[in-house]
Amino acid sequence: MLSRVRSAVAHLVSSGGAPPPGPKSPDQPEATSLLPAVPPEAPGSPPAKAGSASGSAAAPAKAAEARASFSRPTFLQLSPAGLRRADDHAGRAVQSPPDTGRRLPWSTGYAEVINAGKSRHNEDQACCEVVYVEGRRSGSGAPREPGPGQQGLCFYYWGLFDGHAGGGAAEVASRLLHRHIREQLKDLVEILQDPSPPPLCLPSTPGTPGSSDPPHLVGPHSCWPSQKEVTHDSLVVGAIESAFQLMDEQMAQERHGHQVEGGCCALVVVYLLGKMYVANAGDSRAIIVRNGEIIPMSREFTPETERQRLQLLGFLKPELLGSEFTHLEFPRRVQPKELGQRMLYRDQNMTGWAYKHIELEDLRFPLVCGEGKKARVMATIGVTRGLGDHNLRVCSSSLPIKPFLSCFPEVRVYDLTQYEHCPDDVLVLGTDGLWDVTSDAEAAATVDRVLSTYEPNDPSRYTALAQALVLGARGTPRDRGWRLPNNKLGSGDDISVFVIPLGGPGSYS
Amino acid sequence: MLSRVRSAVAHLVSSGGAPPPGPKSPDQPEATSLLPAVPPEAPGSPPAKAGSASGSAAAPAKAAEARASFSRPTFLQLSPAGLRRADDHAGRAVQSPPDTGRRLPWSTGYAEVINAGKSRHNEDQACCEVVYVEGRRSGSGAPREPGPGQQGLCFYYWGLFDGHAGGGAAEVASRLLHRHIREQLKDLVEILQDPSPPPLCLPSTPGTPGSSDPPHLVGPHSCWPSQKEVTHDSLVVGAIESAFQLMDEQMAQERHGHQVEGGCCALVVVYLLGKMYVANAGDSRAIIVRNGEIIPMSREFTPETERQRLQLLGFLKPELLGSEFTHLEFPRRVQPKELGQRMLYRDQNMTGWAYKHIELEDLRFPLVCGEGKKARVMATIGVTRGLGDHNLRVCSSSLPIKPFLSCFPEVRVYDLTQYEHCPDDVLVLGTDGLWDVTSDAEAAATVDRVLSTYEPNDPSRYTALAQALVLGARGTPRDRGWRLPNNKLGSGDDISVFVIPLGGPGSYS
Repeated sequence: MLSRVRSAVAHLVSSGGAPPPGPKSPDQPEATSLLPAVPPEAPGSPPAKAGSASGSAAAPAKAAEARASFSRPTFLQLSPAGLRRADDHAGRAVQSPPDTGRRLPWSTGYAEVINAGKSRHNEDQACCEVVYVEGRRSGSGAPREPGPGQQGLCFYYWGLFDGHAGGGAAEVASRLLHRHIREQLKDLVEILQDPSPPPLCLPSTPGTPGSSDPPHLVGPHSCWPSQKEVTHDSLVVGAIESAFQLMDEQMAQERHGHQVEGGCCALVVVYLLGKMYVANAGDSRAIIVRNGEIIPMSREFTPETERQRLQLLGFLKPELLGSEFTHLEFPRRVQPKELGQRMLYRDQNMTGWAYKHIELEDLRFPLVCGEGKKARVMATIGVTRGLGDHNLRVCSSSLPIKPFLSCFPEVRVYDLTQYEHCPDDVLVLGTDGLWDVTSDAEAAATVDRVLSTYEPNDPSRYTALAQALVLGARGTPRDRGWRLPNNKLGSGDDISVFVIPLGGPGSYS
Repeated sequence: MLSRVRSAVAHLVSSGGAPPPGPKSPDQPEATSLLPAVPPEAPGSPPAKAGSASGSAAAPAKAAEARASFSRPTFLQLSPAGLRRADDHAGRAVQSPPDTGRRLPWSTGYAEVINAGKSRHNEDQACCEVVYVEGRRSGSGAPREPGPGQQGLCFYYWGLFDGHAGGGAAEVASRLLHRHIREQLKDLVEILQDPSPPPLCLPSTPGTPGSSDPPHLVGPHSCWPSQKEVTHDSLVVGAIESAFQLMDEQMAQERHGHQVEGGCCALVVVYLLGKMYVANAGDSRAIIVRNGEIIPMSREFTPETERQRLQLLGFLKPELLGSEFTHLEFPRRVQPKELGQRMLYRDQNMTGWAYKHIELEDLRFPLVCGEGKKARVMATIGVTRGLGDHNLRVCSSSLPIKPFLSCFPEVRVYDLTQYEHCPDDVLVLGTDGLWDVTSDAEAAATVDRVLSTYEPNDPSRYTALAQALVLGARGTPRDRGWRLPNNKLGSGDDISVFVIPLGGPGSYS
C-alpha cells in the first residue's frame, strides 16, 4: 500500500504531473505508472464551480506553497482592507461571502469570525467546491471510452479545518484534501454508476497499456460463493478514508523540505449520487436539523472519548511512552508519598475504576489526563484525530505525539432521497468555537428562529443563519470580554460555520 | 497489579483460605497479607440464599474440581433420571426449577434445553445467587468496626455461561465468577454506602495492622483541585471488570495442572443498591422489555463487531499472526493468480473498502473472515470475548488465539429507581441459542403474550415465560429437524434463558 500512498502523493504534489523533486524512491517507477500524469484540474472539469478555498483555480498543488502568509478562503473575496478587518481580534467582525458576488454552491451559507487573541491569525480554514471526477485514462493518455450512459462524476464538497500550533496544516488541507478525494474516486467512476455489485478485483495498473477492460468485468466471474457483499456506499467511505490518509502522508513528506506548520481537525462533507458522506477527524461537529429534530452526524475525537484506544497503544508499544509516561489513568497525578497506598486507576480495558497498589512507574505522568476542554494526550494536545502534527513533540522532550493521533475520519452516510426535505432542513457544520458554547438544541432553535424570518426561496437565508450561529457563539464585548446574553463568556476561539440546505443542489438559489 | 491478581486467585483457589499448592511466587507473602484468609462463604453470609449453580453450598473452590462429569445447575434439582432426560438430544425436554422446590431469588424465571447434537452435553451453564459481601477485616482477623449504619452488602447475581470447545470453562465460571465479584466488592462495602465521593486512595494493605482507619478518610484531604470525579457506579463497574479478569487469570493458572476445558461467553447481571449492572463478554444478549418498549442492555462481541480491534492488534503485534495470517480483510480469500491485480480490502482504520495491489503477503489467510454466524478469528473461533480458551490454537498450527480474545465485559447500568416498573416489565437474558432465531421484537411479543395469561402475582409466570422463549427458539421435531411454526429451522444450539422481573426483589413472589 505504501506504493499507492507514495504515488498518489507524488502526483498531487507535482504541479502538472511532473515528478516531485528529491531523490527517487525505489518504487517510484511503478508509482508513476500507477497514476498517470494528469494536471491537477483535468480539462473539461468543474461544470458548476464556484467558491473555493484560498484560490483553488490557480492554487499551487504543492502543499508547502500554501505556507504563504495569512489567508482566508477566496470565496470570501476579501480585499486587502477586508483581510485586515477579518484579522482584527478587537473587532471580531463576522465574515461571509458578499451578497453581490457569486454565491456558494448549493446555496450554502457560511460565516466565520477570528478568535479573541489566542493566536495571531484565524487558524480555521474552509473550502466549498463542486468537483468533477473523470474516470482513469488508459496508458495512451486518451480518455477511456465511457460505457453506455456513463460519464464522469460530480461531487459537492464542504470542508472545515480547525488548525492548531500554526495555520499551515489547515491551509494545506483546505486546498488539497478534495483533490485527494477526487483522486481516490477516479477508480470508482464507472463502478458507482453501475447498479451491479462492485468488482472485487481491478486490473493491475490503471495506467498500463492493455488494461483497458472495463474494470467491472474482472471481478464477478472470479468470485467465490462465500464472498462478502461490498456496497457502493462503502467504496465512497473507503475513498474518503484513503484520501485523509494520503493528505496526512503528504504533509509528512513535505515537512522535511518545507515545513507544514501544526495540525488541524478536518470535518468534510461529500455529496455524491444522492448521499451526504460526513467525515470527521477531530472535535468539530455536524448535525442535521430536520423538521426541528436533531440528527447527530459526527462525534468528537478527544483524549476522553479515545482514552481506551490511546491507552491500548501505550500498553502494546511502551517505547512510545518513553520513561516519562504511564498508560494508566489516575483521577489525579500520583504523588511520591502515596507509594504503596492503593489508588483508583483504570487501564485500556476498563470503563470503571478500581484500586491498585501504587508502584514507582505509576508516578510517571499519565498518557491521558484532564477533563473536558482541558483533557490532554501527553499533557500536550486536546484532540486525537486530524491531519498534520508530524513535528509535534512533548514539551521539553523528544517524544513524538503523532503515533497516538489518528488521521482517519469516522464517516456517516445520510441518504437525501429517503426523506422529502423542506427548505428549513439543514446540515450545520461548525468548528469547536461554535459548539463549546452552543448546544445542539440551541443551534436548532437558532435554525428555526432565523429561517422563519426569511422567505423559503430567499437565497440569503442560509448565510444569515450561519452568521446568527457565529454571532450567538461569539457574543458581544462587555465587562472586559465577549459575553453571551446570559452573561456567560462567549467563545474566544476561531468560529466557522457552514449551513447546507438539504433540499438539493441549487433548489433554493 | 499482578500481585493483586495472584493474591485474589490464590485466595479463591484455596478452600478455606489455605495457600494454594505449588511453588510460592516471590510476591506471595505480600499477597497473603493483602487478602487475609476467609472461608469461601463467610460466616453470617447469605441471608436469603436460594438457587445456586452446581451446588455452590458445598462447591469445591478449586476451579479444576469443576471438571467433574456432566452437570446442570443445582437449582434445577435434577434427579439422576432427570439429569439423563436433560442430557437427551433426541427429546430436548425443556428444563426449569421444579414448581415444588424453593424458588429462584427475585422470582426469577429460568428455562434451558440441550442442543440437537452439536456437542455431547449441554455446554451452557447458569447461576442465580444472593451474595453477601462483608467488608475487609483488619489484620487481627476481627471484623473492622463498621461505621454508623454501615453493614455488609448484598447483591443479587445472575450468570449465563455459553461454553465452547468443552464444558469446563462454563462450569468453572458458573461456580466461581460471583465469588470473584464478591472479593472485588469487599473494598467497597463502606465506600458504596457513604454518599460522599469515593476516596482516591486506600491504605496500603487492608489486612495489615495499623491500617484500620476508615478508608474514606485517606482520600479527600490529599486531593488536588483538578481531580477527576469518580462515581460510585463506576467503582462497581470496575469491580466487575476486575472480577472477569481474575476469573480468566485463574483459568489460565490452573490449566497447567488440571485442564480447564475450552472457553465460555459470560453474561452476568449484578443487582446492587438499586441498580442493575449488566456485564457481557461474548455473544449472549440481554434486553429489557418495559411497557412493550425494548431497551438493549448488551451488544455482541464477534469477529465482525470487533474486526478493527483485532486487526489493530495484528498490525501492532505481527508476531501474533505468524507467517500464516494477514491483518487485512478481503471480501474473499485472495488467489495466487490475482497477484498484481488490485482487490478490495480494508485495514484496522477503515470502515469502508478500497482497492489495493495484491502482494505475496496478501495471499495469507485473513485474521478475520466470514460473515454472520460463520465469521471467525483465525478461521477458528466465532466469538471474541469471554473466559478461558487459554489452550486454544489455530488448527494444525501452534499459533495461540487467546491474545486476540478479550476477557473484559462491556457493562451497562440500569437504574431501577428511575422508573415505576409494573409486573410485566422484565430483563431477559439469553444465550445465542435463543437470539439466533428470535428477534428482540419477537421476544417482546412473547413477553406480552405469556405474561398477559397469568395473574400479576402468580409466581410461576416468569418461569412460564422463560419456557415459552426456549420452546419458541427450539421449535418442534418435524421434517427431520427442529422447526419453528413458520417452518424455518429452530435453534440446534443449547438454549438458556433467565427472565428477571424488574418490580424489585421478591415483590411478586
